[in-house]
Amino acid sequence: MALLVLKFGGTSVADIDKIRNAARHVKREIDAGHKCAVVVSAMAGQTNQLIAWVEEAARAQEAGSNGNGNSESRGYDACEYDAVVSSGEQVTAGLLALVLQSLGVRARSWQGWQIPLKTDPVHAKARITGIEGAALKGQVLDGEVAVVAGFQGIAPDARIATLGRGGSDTSAVALAAALDADRCDIYTDVDGVYTTDPRIVPQAQRMDRISYEEMLEMASQGAKVLQTRSVELAMQRSVPVLVRSSFAEADLDADTDLAELGTLVCEEDEIVEQKVVSGIAYAPDEAKVTLIKVADKPGVAARVFGPLAEANINVDMIVQNVSEDGRYTDLTFTVQSADLDRALDVLRSEKDEIGYGDLDGATNVAKVSAIGVGMRSHAGVAARMFNALSEKGINIQAISTSEIKISILIDAAYAELAVRTLHTLFDLDSR
Amino acid sequence: MALLVLKFGGTSVADIDKIRNAARHVKREIDAGHKCAVVVSAMAGQTNQLIAWVEEAARAQEAGSNGNGNSESRGYDACEYDAVVSSGEQVTAGLLALVLQSLGVRARSWQGWQIPLKTDPVHAKARITGIEGAALKGQVLDGEVAVVAGFQGIAPDARIATLGRGGSDTSAVALAAALDADRCDIYTDVDGVYTTDPRIVPQAQRMDRISYEEMLEMASQGAKVLQTRSVELAMQRSVPVLVRSSFAEADLDADTDLAELGTLVCEEDEIVEQKVVSGIAYAPDEAKVTLIKVADKPGVAARVFGPLAEANINVDMIVQNVSEDGRYTDLTFTVQSADLDRALDVLRSEKDEIGYGDLDGATNVAKVSAIGVGMRSHAGVAARMFNALSEKGINIQAISTSEIKISILIDAAYAELAVRTLHTLFDLDSR
Repeated sequence: MALLVLKFGGTSVADIDKIRNAARHVKREIDAGHKCAVVVSAMAGQTNQLIAWVEEAARAQEAGSNGNGNSESRGYDACEYDAVVSSGEQVTAGLLALVLQSLGVRARSWQGWQIPLKTDPVHAKARITGIEGAALKGQVLDGEVAVVAGFQGIAPDARIATLGRGGSDTSAVALAAALDADRCDIYTDVDGVYTTDPRIVPQAQRMDRISYEEMLEMASQGAKVLQTRSVELAMQRSVPVLVRSSFAEADLDADTDLAELGTLVCEEDEIVEQKVVSGIAYAPDEAKVTLIKVADKPGVAARVFGPLAEANINVDMIVQNVSEDGRYTDLTFTVQSADLDRALDVLRSEKDEIGYGDLDGATNVAKVSAIGVGMRSHAGVAARMFNALSEKGINIQAISTSEIKISILIDAAYAELAVRTLHTLFDLDSR
Repeated sequence: MALLVLKFGGTSVADIDKIRNAARHVKREIDAGHKCAVVVSAMAGQTNQLIAWVEEAARAQEAGSNGNGNSESRGYDACEYDAVVSSGEQVTAGLLALVLQSLGVRARSWQGWQIPLKTDPVHAKARITGIEGAALKGQVLDGEVAVVAGFQGIAPDARIATLGRGGSDTSAVALAAALDADRCDIYTDVDGVYTTDPRIVPQAQRMDRISYEEMLEMASQGAKVLQTRSVELAMQRSVPVLVRSSFAEADLDADTDLAELGTLVCEEDEIVEQKVVSGIAYAPDEAKVTLIKVADKPGVAARVFGPLAEANINVDMIVQNVSEDGRYTDLTFTVQSADLDRALDVLRSEKDEIGYGDLDGATNVAKVSAIGVGMRSHAGVAARMFNALSEKGINIQAISTSEIKISILIDAAYAELAVRTLHTLFDLDSR
């Protein structure tokens, strides 16, 4: 007997037939003698409809704002956004409980406030602060499936708070940690984590296992299969996470090896055969900002990046050219494409404070990253990478590295070539 | 300054434009210095969508049931029905709060469990047992509009319970009573209560005032403008209820006389000019059941009506013919058309217990009622009524009366003629 948390995303519960399919996966685990809690997203499309209504409702107020950015900067009440948008998961949870009951499986739905799953006060992108899951766990151990509305909790003001993008993955991992579950299965529309995007490299292979740290870098560097915060949490709390397909046959043998089912995200030391580079991530939605002729003296960076941080814009790679005359330099950094216009607005409004000659923004760039815990013990990975790209005539515009990752910014036109080149270089192509 | 509860039904909040219109009504009251709580239904169509999903989700389980009747007899879990269906009002409440904020009016949404509005344990058709409205009232008196999700509360099991059909009217009246509000305004798609259905009698007049008791009979006898239970509650708690149009100009003068705005449901002694008959109600959805050749002895009625009550079928008018031979008689009664097939099924399955010769069901009947507190002090109302109908050649199949109401069952083909005849007879036609 194992205690499992299963999570189904929006496309896996998009209509009643898909919910029925999800229920069959749950029933298989129950029939095999396991105890289950299930976390669900809103039916695909519902959240977008709800957000559209919120934006329409708030429009009169919004007229004076710049109309993009996150919910706070949009100017409407994040508490009400949460009250409206959280209803999507509430509906799916009730429906899945009903389908499970129709299959003869005992089940009940739980909303965030009913568990309670507690969050901090930051409505619309709250963080989980604790889960008081004793009552829920008691019922799960008693054999009743707990169907939990993902993406939501209750804030200190006793109102519903939502967790922001990808929040249902985080709900699932946090619940698995709180329940001390044996595993958290993330059912999604792909059957695991691949060495790179198979649409770009047909030879990409599904990994049997990937370490938390690598998965974290993969998620941060563009792989969309798991939300970054959920991986952080899984790593902190040592929750084994299995990424698997909800569209696979639900009535498979309960003894099937995990490696056949999907990709297990786990501790590094549970992975026997470790390559130097485990995967190549690719983030096309990058934008490059260049401040031309900035004073080359202390304090300038703070005057540039302070206002951007206040505007909630994440800055990723930063390159400061060597100053030729010791007085002026150029400063280049990357942001998400969606944030580019807002970043430029902020920098224009701070022009007098910062002091620069010109400002340039471009979206024709992409970030490609090689990721692998094996880099720690293998020198020369970066050199091999730059050589291989150079041989293909690909110019590197910026570099950032961590202990287990090397990211480069290049002309978007060369992105797919770069991914294929690195995938082959690091011996990831399937045979 | 008055404390008002405003209620907007599904057609009055059917889309964001209509919600905006509702918000303008609220703003007018706030601008006039009043304090407001607002109760909202789900956007028109949403509840039906949610119920359709629930039914689809439960279908596998339902296969063995007869497929009609209320949610319990449908065989699915009423707790999950409530979790899903209550989301509709939650969405509207959040959206109206956002629109009010966009108009510069302080507002927040409240869900049933947040107030809390407590109910009995009967999920899917719960009754309100109490409202702990101190926190809500405090914020309302402080000038913040409380936008309350109607139709829902929290049951003793700490899960959401819905109030059944027309529940939002009941939520509004109960909230008005709990807050000790000066008035409960029911905004709907008609501009008040009419002496009869204006689609049948163009001379029907809107009443300025109607007593609780008369309104209760009007609602029970077929007038759909207010839900019966909400009128009962208003009567018990002496809450003045104003039925008015949400589509009327929102920016009318705050001093406008109530009589121009709609119909006030109030105590009898607040109505100066009282007619003998105040209104003619008309219920086309009646069905007649006849048990032919039933034993004319004690206990038979219990054996007939007991199983029907257990199946949750409301029986209205009952006529037992005088027995010709002292041994057998015919028993006729009415049920809602929607319940007819189920009633016949129940009676067939009880045939041996009850003992009858034959069973007959018909839907070609209608119930017409004359209602007025003036009947108490005026004799001969029934006689005048039967005479007038007789002159038109209308045959009366059954009669039921109360102190302030006379209902007759007639051939449906004559229903509209009967309504017009009685409307004229009792001097209700407008001049």
